[in-house]
Amino acid sequence: MKNPESSPAASIPDVFDPTCSSRHALELIAGKWPMLIISALENGPMRNAALMRRLGDISQKMLTQTLKELERNGLVIREDMRTVPPHVEYSLSPVGRSLSETLLVLDRWAETHFGALDAARERYDTERRK
Amino acid sequence: MKNPESSPAASIPDVFDPTCSSRHALELIAGKWPMLIISALENGPMRNAALMRRLGDISQKMLTQTLKELERNGLVIREDMRTVPPHVEYSLSPVGRSLSETLLVLDRWAETHFGALDAARERYDTERRK
Repeated sequence: MKNPESSPAASIPDVFDPTCSSRHALELIAGKWPMLIISALENGPMRNAALMRRLGDISQKMLTQTLKELERNGLVIREDMRTVPPHVEYSLSPVGRSLSETLLVLDRWAETHFGALDAARERYDTERRK
Repeated sequence: MKNPESSPAASIPDVFDPTCSSRHALELIAGKWPMLIISALENGPMRNAALMRRLGDISQKMLTQTLKELERNGLVIREDMRTVPPHVEYSLSPVGRSLSETLLVLDRWAETHFGALDAARERYDTERRK
């Protein structure tokens, strides 16, 4: 090691280290909108209006903002067909696709276990109302 | 079908349906703090102070609040040893443990791909500065 300050441990990516870029990557995707958008694009390119419908209750502003941040980080590709009327499509980049596979597992987890969470919440709230 | 209003599709859990409980489950875990807390507890029970250290830059208020919501939804178990001085431990419930396994895959994804995200972001910002 030329520089005694840089320990080997400091160079291992660790989401628990707030100064590590991997923590920033996790923060970028750790939100319901980034997660749902990436999952929605799993089946192929989509236009803005189709994404709005698929996501159900997202505002146009939030959708635009989230898509821009995902594009900026190379997870989503924005393709402007330069037609009149305008036709813009969003799709997953290869790295976005690798993420979507992991997120689908999380979606399935939520769809499998939400009943247990609902029941636990009801128990917790009932006990505290006594 | 006795009730023509209740289509079979309506009973299939779908995180894309804002009225579905599975969407709420996803919203609960889709945040950096719930995700990091669940991952941190993967290796066994932890006390408040140890969690604070592990998470790096969380406030006490946010940690307390997130732990309470995770406990309320049955993902985290809070155990008060009723000693003086007080000793309270947090651990994963079985359903919390099933989530932690999925989240670890996401942590590893962030630790593997953050470089690609950093590079994409730099390219994006440089192009737009021109």
